[in-house]
Amino acid sequence: MSTPAYAAATAKAPLAPWTIERRAPKPHDVQIDIRYCGVCHSDIHQARAEWGGGIFPMVPGHEIVGEVSAVGDAVTKYKVGDTVGVGCFVDSCRECASCREGEEQYCQKGMTGTYNSFERGTRTPTHGGYSTRIVADENYVLRIPPSIPLDRAAPLLCAGITVYSPMRHYGVEAGDSVAVVGLGGLGHMAVKIARAMGARVTVLSTSPSKRDDALALGADDFAATSDPTVFKTRAGSFDFVLDTVSAPHDYNAYLGLLRRDGTMILVGLPDQPVPLSAGPLIMGRRRLAGSLIGGIRETQEMLDFCAEHGVASDIELIPVEKINEAYERMIKGDVRYRFVIDCATF
Amino acid sequence: MSTPAYAAATAKAPLAPWTIERRAPKPHDVQIDIRYCGVCHSDIHQARAEWGGGIFPMVPGHEIVGEVSAVGDAVTKYKVGDTVGVGCFVDSCRECASCREGEEQYCQKGMTGTYNSFERGTRTPTHGGYSTRIVADENYVLRIPPSIPLDRAAPLLCAGITVYSPMRHYGVEAGDSVAVVGLGGLGHMAVKIARAMGARVTVLSTSPSKRDDALALGADDFAATSDPTVFKTRAGSFDFVLDTVSAPHDYNAYLGLLRRDGTMILVGLPDQPVPLSAGPLIMGRRRLAGSLIGGIRETQEMLDFCAEHGVASDIELIPVEKINEAYERMIKGDVRYRFVIDCATF
Repeated sequence: MSTPAYAAATAKAPLAPWTIERRAPKPHDVQIDIRYCGVCHSDIHQARAEWGGGIFPMVPGHEIVGEVSAVGDAVTKYKVGDTVGVGCFVDSCRECASCREGEEQYCQKGMTGTYNSFERGTRTPTHGGYSTRIVADENYVLRIPPSIPLDRAAPLLCAGITVYSPMRHYGVEAGDSVAVVGLGGLGHMAVKIARAMGARVTVLSTSPSKRDDALALGADDFAATSDPTVFKTRAGSFDFVLDTVSAPHDYNAYLGLLRRDGTMILVGLPDQPVPLSAGPLIMGRRRLAGSLIGGIRETQEMLDFCAEHGVASDIELIPVEKINEAYERMIKGDVRYRFVIDCATF
Repeated sequence: MSTPAYAAATAKAPLAPWTIERRAPKPHDVQIDIRYCGVCHSDIHQARAEWGGGIFPMVPGHEIVGEVSAVGDAVTKYKVGDTVGVGCFVDSCRECASCREGEEQYCQKGMTGTYNSFERGTRTPTHGGYSTRIVADENYVLRIPPSIPLDRAAPLLCAGITVYSPMRHYGVEAGDSVAVVGLGGLGHMAVKIARAMGARVTVLSTSPSKRDDALALGADDFAATSDPTVFKTRAGSFDFVLDTVSAPHDYNAYLGLLRRDGTMILVGLPDQPVPLSAGPLIMGRRRLAGSLIGGIRETQEMLDFCAEHGVASDIELIPVEKINEAYERMIKGDVRYRFVIDCATF
């Protein structure tokens, strides 16, 4: 059916109103009336083809929450009226080892992105949450616990799971000392979730001005890395460094902050290689590790965890016509901490 | 007591005969008549001050095996006539967390190297195994199982433990697929030990000529990385990549050979940073990890493991007067796979 949306017509065009066609629900599909959609930095990269290519016109958005408005005949997990979400992907091969293990984000044939992708086996582009409605297979839909304010739940679908999954996978435990590098959309969720896991959290930011915010978000400590002595005074003091920064920066300096056997987790993807010295890894038996969002099962676990611990994103709600302005502010780092589109404004 | 040795008088001098003074055994000391000493590539780096500075004159050598010829009054672990070894370090602070956990190689105050170091709390240089006798605290001495030919046991004290420890620590198990990068002193031990652990071993080498040797050493498979298609045909196929190469090389290409959740272990230390892309880490939730030799307890475990599995180093036994020639051959990679000095030739 015909659905209002905002799209980038080309990699050089600002987002503008456009109309997309959503499919009628197939037997396993859930039709969702979108209430809110978070604005992820990767939306900008993709809408501007900064990661190499893109399918245009493109409707970004993969932090989607709303209400079920119709279901296919075979749907068993959801019913009309349920509050649900869709994250970064809407399908995967369902057959490879990663899919069978519930780690669909690592699907060996490639997950189907919520936007900037093609529906499996077709040349029909997928379109994201900068729109009023989406149709997705029930197996790729999440249940949003009622205790999380819905607009503040949207960013959990990408920013939340991106930091929750590696902390679980690499074993953050209560009492661990965790440094969160960068206090943006990902970083602010990392502070909240790490605290909820019982960790002692230190925010490391290039901006001394973020100290008060970091502490208000729940961090136990803050250090401004604009002062390079930080890397000496805090050497060897963290069990984990969770690095959310996607601008190139000196991994070696941050590795030196880890204790012996510590793990530095990369979730930000710089657009160029970074010089790495083997020394900090070898001399302290440290690990440098990566992680990509999370699977459906773990995303649901994360949502339930956030509900249990009263965790939600700090957001700035915007009408959709402010999206281009929001992009410009995000590029300057001027957002606390996630823009969320109010989809009633289409 | 006065002890014959070979020393580098300065960083620019070849090794030449010299006489050192070994201390009389203190209550906890073991005096060892050295029978054999392995020649490690790090001996060359240190004797030539390539790692920044050095204590000269320097007597290298930290793959030492021999017989106990005297013990201090308080020694309980060894008696005269025992066959023993000394590895890369002869002391540590014994108080920090790493020392208390038996990971003395990561001593927070710095381990005392077997050579090119100072005895703790003094300005007395330590001297290594290119000599006929050494005196060391019994807690830093290893027992060499009688079933390992003594000359072929020497390299286990550094090359052996350097590859054994990370395979244990990062969890190599029977049935795992392990790629060993580089077939030198470390690499050839890695092949033998990984096989003894029940792993399926593939050697990756820039030299196609090493195929036969790799298979003879026990590798299941071999791939010459001079052919770049290897990185495509074998992408995503290893649980572990054990990288023994200390020349700068493309970590990203090797990371791509790992399965999801695989670990690449660095034990070679390039003298300059290597460009690292976050992509291979993030997209496959992979880990890049380091490891430094091993602690005393684990070194003993490794020796016992090698005895149990019939593992020893492949060596070329040389008289000490050939040491400078051996260094030149090692720099060209012309050794299968470790030079060992016969200390009867002093």
